[in-house]
Amino acid sequence: MERTEIQELGEFALINRLTQELKNNAPSTLLGVGDDAAVIDPLGKRVVVSTDMLVEGVHFDLSYVPLKHLGYKAVISNISDVCAMNAKPTQIVVGLGVSNRFSVEALEELYDGIKTACQLYEVDLVGGDTTSIPSGLTLSVTALGLVDADKIVTRSGASAGDLLVVSGELGSAYLGLQVLEREKEVFKEAPTAQPELKDHSYIIERQLKPEARTDIIRELADLEIKPTSMIDISDGLASECLHIVAASGVGVRVYEEKLPMDPKTYDTAREFNLDPTVCMLSGGEDYELLFTVHQDDFEKIRNHPKLSIIGHMTEDVNEQVMVTNSGQDITLKAQGWDSIKA
Amino acid sequence: MERTEIQELGEFALINRLTQELKNNAPSTLLGVGDDAAVIDPLGKRVVVSTDMLVEGVHFDLSYVPLKHLGYKAVISNISDVCAMNAKPTQIVVGLGVSNRFSVEALEELYDGIKTACQLYEVDLVGGDTTSIPSGLTLSVTALGLVDADKIVTRSGASAGDLLVVSGELGSAYLGLQVLEREKEVFKEAPTAQPELKDHSYIIERQLKPEARTDIIRELADLEIKPTSMIDISDGLASECLHIVAASGVGVRVYEEKLPMDPKTYDTAREFNLDPTVCMLSGGEDYELLFTVHQDDFEKIRNHPKLSIIGHMTEDVNEQVMVTNSGQDITLKAQGWDSIKA
Repeated sequence: MERTEIQELGEFALINRLTQELKNNAPSTLLGVGDDAAVIDPLGKRVVVSTDMLVEGVHFDLSYVPLKHLGYKAVISNISDVCAMNAKPTQIVVGLGVSNRFSVEALEELYDGIKTACQLYEVDLVGGDTTSIPSGLTLSVTALGLVDADKIVTRSGASAGDLLVVSGELGSAYLGLQVLEREKEVFKEAPTAQPELKDHSYIIERQLKPEARTDIIRELADLEIKPTSMIDISDGLASECLHIVAASGVGVRVYEEKLPMDPKTYDTAREFNLDPTVCMLSGGEDYELLFTVHQDDFEKIRNHPKLSIIGHMTEDVNEQVMVTNSGQDITLKAQGWDSIKA
Repeated sequence: MERTEIQELGEFALINRLTQELKNNAPSTLLGVGDDAAVIDPLGKRVVVSTDMLVEGVHFDLSYVPLKHLGYKAVISNISDVCAMNAKPTQIVVGLGVSNRFSVEALEELYDGIKTACQLYEVDLVGGDTTSIPSGLTLSVTALGLVDADKIVTRSGASAGDLLVVSGELGSAYLGLQVLEREKEVFKEAPTAQPELKDHSYIIERQLKPEARTDIIRELADLEIKPTSMIDISDGLASECLHIVAASGVGVRVYEEKLPMDPKTYDTAREFNLDPTVCMLSGGEDYELLFTVHQDDFEKIRNHPKLSIIGHMTEDVNEQVMVTNSGQDITLKAQGWDSIKA
């Protein structure tokens, strides 16, 4: 395979090569890559902005995450934050730090993933900065989105009595990571062994190629539901619940039996001798949306195939409880993945 | 001095500590730090967005750049890009990657610099992400700004006959770096020697504490001048001239005798046996604005104390010329500082 050193191109030629086929699709993008800054027409709406930094060896391991997937996931995790404000993601800018371990072709692969996510989510890559770093790979993504002034949803609007709702299902991204890490160990011991990933393709995809729930944002709008509070699940359900509790000044009761898990994910948890509920509470990287709605919206969502009502908010901010399948109250604790403490 | 390990706090407590006294001042900031994303009211204007990544050992050397200055400069270089679109900088988000070499107190110092720049420029810090990295320090800043739809200035609007104008003076940031690097070498040899920085305080300040020319943006508006093209000088005058030339499809003639240099900077160039003109053309990090205006605006700026008319644009895109003091034409070359090739 061809290997072009980054130094052969220099910064401007590299940026040109990585961004040469970019087309802007969002109506709000007036000017994209290539000037001092991009220009956006907010179309009369509010602008939301969120940023994330992903670092090799801390947030990802390139021995089992292909560069294309890394680029894809970096975009997803950011536009998921934009969704959590009830906004439509529209633009991203990307800061990229690369060591000379990476060739131009490797960066093209990374950008392929970034561009694929952008296309799928109708988000435009409108700017960036590329620089050399002494070692490893660092990716910083900032996402912008637009939302009507009266549709913004923060973490702080939940009231006692509101229903707590989560989209999709939980824990599979975390278990996908367990499978990948196990295979990495197997590979270290026996590099010629065939990886046993087939049975786990669903959860591996949840780990390597997560999706942001822009569909949920659209469907809530169609149902004329404005959540009272919302957050996306990056650190794990428990941690995100507690963020809503703290920001809104209410308590929460979550019911274990209501937590949504895919049967294959459940089987894999058992295979790894992990408690499925703990995987859902603390696994993280699900990029599902956790939100509260007024009780009046109950009928609109009770049978929604993508949504689970998992609990409700209470008066007492000190009540942070999960009711187990056996009927016991246990205290919710944030044991999410912490990139600082890790 | 107290040293608190970052791991003692964890991510959320660290962010709280670094951002605890933040107040939002820009009227466009509706919601700052603390939710999934910040929310901005664009006030009927266009939004511009620009991002930069700064890496220890590549863009800065902490042995002579205090952390506070680093934070300050990171903000300045980004809002300078926003200025170059003729926009008013309004918000920043900051991605911070830190190794365990840094204490919480060190990060507070860095944030002090960020906050000081924000206050001075009436820019709000509205979001960020903080993560551990295996080694060093990486800072990623994304800046937003607002501009009236009809006031946006890109690199591509210059026409033949337009005057080429630069703000302030050039080369001093580069020479400030030379002084700091010399003192670092002296310090290595004789750690007890007193640094000889006093005579060079102006150029050292230009290197460590550069300013973004928001004042020029305001004054151009007051003078009712809309530049036909604009760029900020981060890589050096020659490189930026060529960006305007390439984007606008015109040629350029720059006059060496018109290039603005501070007398102290000139003396320092001589002291280092450096050609002052080369320092101005290729030094970089000046964060001055380089722009073109229609000839009709000549009278408005000819005696402006902060502006120098250094040349004009020509028909032939292949004409990229500096006319030397001895009357010779030499070809402008971009030998600016390239963080990829470096």
